[in-house]
Amino acid sequence: MKVYLAGPEVFLPDAVEVGQRKRELCRRYGFEGLYPLDNEIEPDADEPLCRSIFTGNVNMIRMAGALIANLTPFRGVSADVGTVFELGFAFALGKPVIGYSNINTDLYKRVLDFLKDGKTRLRSDGRIFGVDNFAIENFNLSDNLMIVEALVASGHDIFFPDAPIADTWHDLSAFESCLSWLAAARRGQSMRVATGL
Amino acid sequence: MKVYLAGPEVFLPDAVEVGQRKRELCRRYGFEGLYPLDNEIEPDADEPLCRSIFTGNVNMIRMAGALIANLTPFRGVSADVGTVFELGFAFALGKPVIGYSNINTDLYKRVLDFLKDGKTRLRSDGRIFGVDNFAIENFNLSDNLMIVEALVASGHDIFFPDAPIADTWHDLSAFESCLSWLAAARRGQSMRVATGL
Repeated sequence: MKVYLAGPEVFLPDAVEVGQRKRELCRRYGFEGLYPLDNEIEPDADEPLCRSIFTGNVNMIRMAGALIANLTPFRGVSADVGTVFELGFAFALGKPVIGYSNINTDLYKRVLDFLKDGKTRLRSDGRIFGVDNFAIENFNLSDNLMIVEALVASGHDIFFPDAPIADTWHDLSAFESCLSWLAAARRGQSMRVATGL
Repeated sequence: MKVYLAGPEVFLPDAVEVGQRKRELCRRYGFEGLYPLDNEIEPDADEPLCRSIFTGNVNMIRMAGALIANLTPFRGVSADVGTVFELGFAFALGKPVIGYSNINTDLYKRVLDFLKDGKTRLRSDGRIFGVDNFAIENFNLSDNLMIVEALVASGHDIFFPDAPIADTWHDLSAFESCLSWLAAARRGQSMRVATGL
């Protein structure tokens, strides 16, 4: 089965090498990893590069039987938005979506850190507001509920590293947990969203 | 036609009132607005609230013929991730996705502001890196290319207010531009993704 590998590591200086390591791990678990940078873009005078990348990624997700997303918070409180777009896209197509994060904290805590002032206000409707006067999701989830519940609907909450890790952007132990779970699910143990398997 | 109204205004203190104003504008353009909070959640002992909200939103998007997203940057450099998930979800189902932002700046500039140090490094592969040692997308786009190109594939780039606005989170002029464009597209002028219309 082909597995699309979504995540912000495409922005790393060693993006190509990280992709090679991820694909090698996929092979060990019986999968073929599809990495956004595999998508060889031919310079095309008729189309801007960003359009070719978009079309290439979308087509790779269509070809894949599942998606594994690196949801480690990226330049803000939440996962990378490009990754989240791809997660929603794959989920709508009925493909199982599996996710991991190398930072094991609640969204609630990260928002308070982002606001730099932990002052909150409880309103009569039960919602908690930050100093920016926006409500803060407080469901004990690792990220926005649309992200986490899509993972849960596919059969498993977000994966975190089992032990402390040395490098947030290069450690692949939680990614490997996703592969291990997906391989077991494929053998018929726990996958709820069965399309594409 | 039903139109799903995605956006982080559900986190505003007056989220309900903003939804009412958006639905009223929808009616004026011949649409029925579906707002996340319309989804009346019955407390259910068998299911956590976050799951009921997720299922409700996903079902409303399935019922809608199009989606209009408020992509104004929210708590970070990019659009709200819940909104972006819904955008990817709707786009995969072949529904036209239309988006607006009340902050008219490039993603590139916002990332440099976020990093608080405008120093960049051009690598031999042509990519520009910020001080966080991640590449910065530099396609003159208002947000991550997956977001903007999904809009373009539906027929129109992101909408911004035509004139300076007084209130980033309550001004609906750019939202109204989306409605006006969608109404014209529905009359057969410019919609590329035709499913659901």
